[in-house]
Amino acid sequence: MKEEVKVFAPATVANVSCGFDVLGFCLSPIGDTVIVRKKEQPGVVITKIVGQDLPLDTKKNVAGVAAEALLEDLQSNQGFEIEIHKGIKAGSGIGSSAASSAGAVFGINALLGNPYTRNELIKFAMKGEELASGTPHADNVSPALLGGFTIVRCGKGPDVISIPTPPDLYATIIHPKIELKTADARSVLKKNIPLDKAIQQWGNLAALVSGLFKADYELIGRSLVDVIIEPERAGLIPQFDAVKLAAKNAGGLGSGISGSGPSIYTLSKGKENAENVRTAIAEVFAPLQIEFDTYVSKINTQGVAIID
Amino acid sequence: MKEEVKVFAPATVANVSCGFDVLGFCLSPIGDTVIVRKKEQPGVVITKIVGQDLPLDTKKNVAGVAAEALLEDLQSNQGFEIEIHKGIKAGSGIGSSAASSAGAVFGINALLGNPYTRNELIKFAMKGEELASGTPHADNVSPALLGGFTIVRCGKGPDVISIPTPPDLYATIIHPKIELKTADARSVLKKNIPLDKAIQQWGNLAALVSGLFKADYELIGRSLVDVIIEPERAGLIPQFDAVKLAAKNAGGLGSGISGSGPSIYTLSKGKENAENVRTAIAEVFAPLQIEFDTYVSKINTQGVAIID
Repeated sequence: MKEEVKVFAPATVANVSCGFDVLGFCLSPIGDTVIVRKKEQPGVVITKIVGQDLPLDTKKNVAGVAAEALLEDLQSNQGFEIEIHKGIKAGSGIGSSAASSAGAVFGINALLGNPYTRNELIKFAMKGEELASGTPHADNVSPALLGGFTIVRCGKGPDVISIPTPPDLYATIIHPKIELKTADARSVLKKNIPLDKAIQQWGNLAALVSGLFKADYELIGRSLVDVIIEPERAGLIPQFDAVKLAAKNAGGLGSGISGSGPSIYTLSKGKENAENVRTAIAEVFAPLQIEFDTYVSKINTQGVAIID
Repeated sequence: MKEEVKVFAPATVANVSCGFDVLGFCLSPIGDTVIVRKKEQPGVVITKIVGQDLPLDTKKNVAGVAAEALLEDLQSNQGFEIEIHKGIKAGSGIGSSAASSAGAVFGINALLGNPYTRNELIKFAMKGEELASGTPHADNVSPALLGGFTIVRCGKGPDVISIPTPPDLYATIIHPKIELKTADARSVLKKNIPLDKAIQQWGNLAALVSGLFKADYELIGRSLVDVIIEPERAGLIPQFDAVKLAAKNAGGLGSGISGSGPSIYTLSKGKENAENVRTAIAEVFAPLQIEFDTYVSKINTQGVAIID
């Protein structure tokens, strides 16, 4: 059996418009690289973090907490070293903590001969999310582990359903480098919402899920509407409405806030549209005094993967 | 071209649990029979209604209003006689008005050489629903016209999406013959709902739609949960909780209020389970002083159809 694996742990988009807290998808071009290696003594040690200033203390690191949850469940005394090369910035809204957590548990599981399925790893990776945000949510770790689009249903434990990815679906991401705390993004949400808006929202989500199953790009586009969360949060992200409009005019199917922001995602049919969207939204941001990154990604249907 | 058609216009279930106001499906065994016949003079005349005391005045009859909407849109001077044999009781919660409206427009469309698709007929049949309930909702007329399961998205005009029907899916209906006014069923609903419940609801609906696409009966069963409307309305229907429990114990996947009640639907995998559910829920109602009907139906994937 191998002694060491190198894992690519991809970025993800959660809170996909009308699918707030439920629907997420997996990206290709950026992610963390997590190297997991067996060690003689029991326990988990984070030996190195490259690219970000994050705690090495296992109990304070999302990957460490997730790794320990797996080993505890398995009652394994095997020890592991974890090395994390951060490709995703914390606080960007594209699943930075989820990637590290997913990468760690996936790597350990591989080195142990895969006692758990990818779906079973979700509950361990969620422990990392709990450390990062206070709630053990599954909406980023699920697409990170399973790839493609995932639905998280509330149930006893996470009930995660994979849904098919239309073959020609691309995402464009813009990450404006501003700080937007998840707590602030949460504080603008109202505890109660109008029933009629909620019905619109779940009608749109039902239609969006159908569009993904049918690979009906038009239907995906017209269903990517969030009448509840986005109106409250859009004001926290500079140029949100302008980005959305530019993306639409450049051929995008629809846009929304990625996670709790500040990143904005756009879905497009085909790479050319996705690249045109990238150009158009970069032009919206170019005149501002805000640094930003952009990415174009085919939807990553594989999820976290061993690369070495 | 034919001068007369006889149309079977099926009953339907709307407000399918977490799909309140959005998701509906079509039944087989009961429905209205609508006979449509060309006449020399322009205009629409309801010549006969059998089985129910409903207005013959075209302007006050859902089928008449729907028929006139179609002819006005087409700017046709062709006249029609409509004869309605009611197989569905008004106020039963299984789409009585929708069946008559759908049957009338489908029959007229057929006699005119099908200028409209089934999907295009929805907007005319909705005019009948507007007369019946005050709002032009599409959630019963859509499955009546298209068959199977349908999603109605709020958009400019009705945006109706057909979704596949798992091959082995059956419905059991119990119709307790009590009067339950739609207005009363509406008045118990709160205008504002908690965001966390709404998220549960749309997570369940997304999962339910996925279950229908995947023909995953287990997933359908565990997603048939309504945390918003059903808790408010269940008290209006005698023995609702007992019926639900009996249906589950008899092998049903899940139950809910059909339309705004008082009928209750249960979905089951296979005819045997559906029949067992029928027996079990009939036993719940048998000791009460309430008359009731029960039906078992394969999901009707065809919708309204010419039978003669």
